[in-house]
Amino acid sequence: MSRKAETSTPINDVLANRWSPRAYNGEAVDAATLAKLFEAARWAASGFNRQPWRYLVASRNEKAEFDRIVACLGEFNQVWAKNAGALVIVTTLSSDEDGKPKPMAKYNAGLATAQLVLEAHANGLHCRQMGGINRDAIRAEFNVPENADVIVCIAIGYAAPAETLSERNYEKEIAPRVRKPLSEIVFSGDWGKAADLS
Amino acid sequence: MSRKAETSTPINDVLANRWSPRAYNGEAVDAATLAKLFEAARWAASGFNRQPWRYLVASRNEKAEFDRIVACLGEFNQVWAKNAGALVIVTTLSSDEDGKPKPMAKYNAGLATAQLVLEAHANGLHCRQMGGINRDAIRAEFNVPENADVIVCIAIGYAAPAETLSERNYEKEIAPRVRKPLSEIVFSGDWGKAADLS
Repeated sequence: MSRKAETSTPINDVLANRWSPRAYNGEAVDAATLAKLFEAARWAASGFNRQPWRYLVASRNEKAEFDRIVACLGEFNQVWAKNAGALVIVTTLSSDEDGKPKPMAKYNAGLATAQLVLEAHANGLHCRQMGGINRDAIRAEFNVPENADVIVCIAIGYAAPAETLSERNYEKEIAPRVRKPLSEIVFSGDWGKAADLS
Repeated sequence: MSRKAETSTPINDVLANRWSPRAYNGEAVDAATLAKLFEAARWAASGFNRQPWRYLVASRNEKAEFDRIVACLGEFNQVWAKNAGALVIVTTLSSDEDGKPKPMAKYNAGLATAQLVLEAHANGLHCRQMGGINRDAIRAEFNVPENADVIVCIAIGYAAPAETLSERNYEKEIAPRVRKPLSEIVFSGDWGKAADLS
């Protein structure tokens, strides 16, 4: 299902076509394809080239590992994410080994993960990022060190028709895509003063 | 100058060609092009579709506004960023109006800004993000509210030959692009255990 963004000006197709479905067909994402996604993340920019992002992946091909991650998702996410082709936990090194905070670590992880997601779309996949996860369970289950933050889990897979979802998720899946207007997010002169981009 | 990433497996060209030069030719980025960049950021994913990212922009066409931002950069960044075609300050709403922290705000801003940067590249522009900025000065100069974090400033523009830079920045500009191997950033089974992506 295409859900191309109704942009106010044309943008690159991979970006315009990116959206976050819940309906996946259960087909596994193979290792070679996953390698492309992580390679895209790998080349992201970061302050001092620190590259704080760290990913934990399970393809549906490795069912036991996949299910270990599914068990750490919120129940409302488990019902649809169990049909993804791979699950990826996003973590980032929020402090160095001396305990010194790295306040840009989450931002940098966002830069990298956006590249991962766009590479997925360029390969016919879709992704949905989930904040509704049990971070303590993930930390314990996968031995995430204290200086790493658990951010989100990404469901990656091949999209299925919205009709395969529960009624509640079906309604969310087909709802119009909406965003704030540019005037509320782009300022000029003073924070809060809409930029004139015409 | 192309500085395509030496990827371990092929990835989308826009992603592979993204890099962060310091050498810009002083040509302004016009408003219509800037609108495309912000439109790309606008359609990023965010938790609960909160869209916490807020940008403050000055094109070189508005020289007084552009110079207000230049004055807030670290001196080592001013020397090259003054030749950019536009400057964009990235902020994000790190707490809501009741003061409740929004721990995903920086991550979400990273997701959006990566889309902005990739749209820039898709339009023949380059970007370099700067963490070396005077955040207190930016907050005061542009009235950034307390519940917003100032993250980075992005130099956006048309690339110039590396030879136009100072000797020190020239050496950085032509140095090989390096990243950690996938084995250090992608894990499986346990955090820290390299995933087999072959």
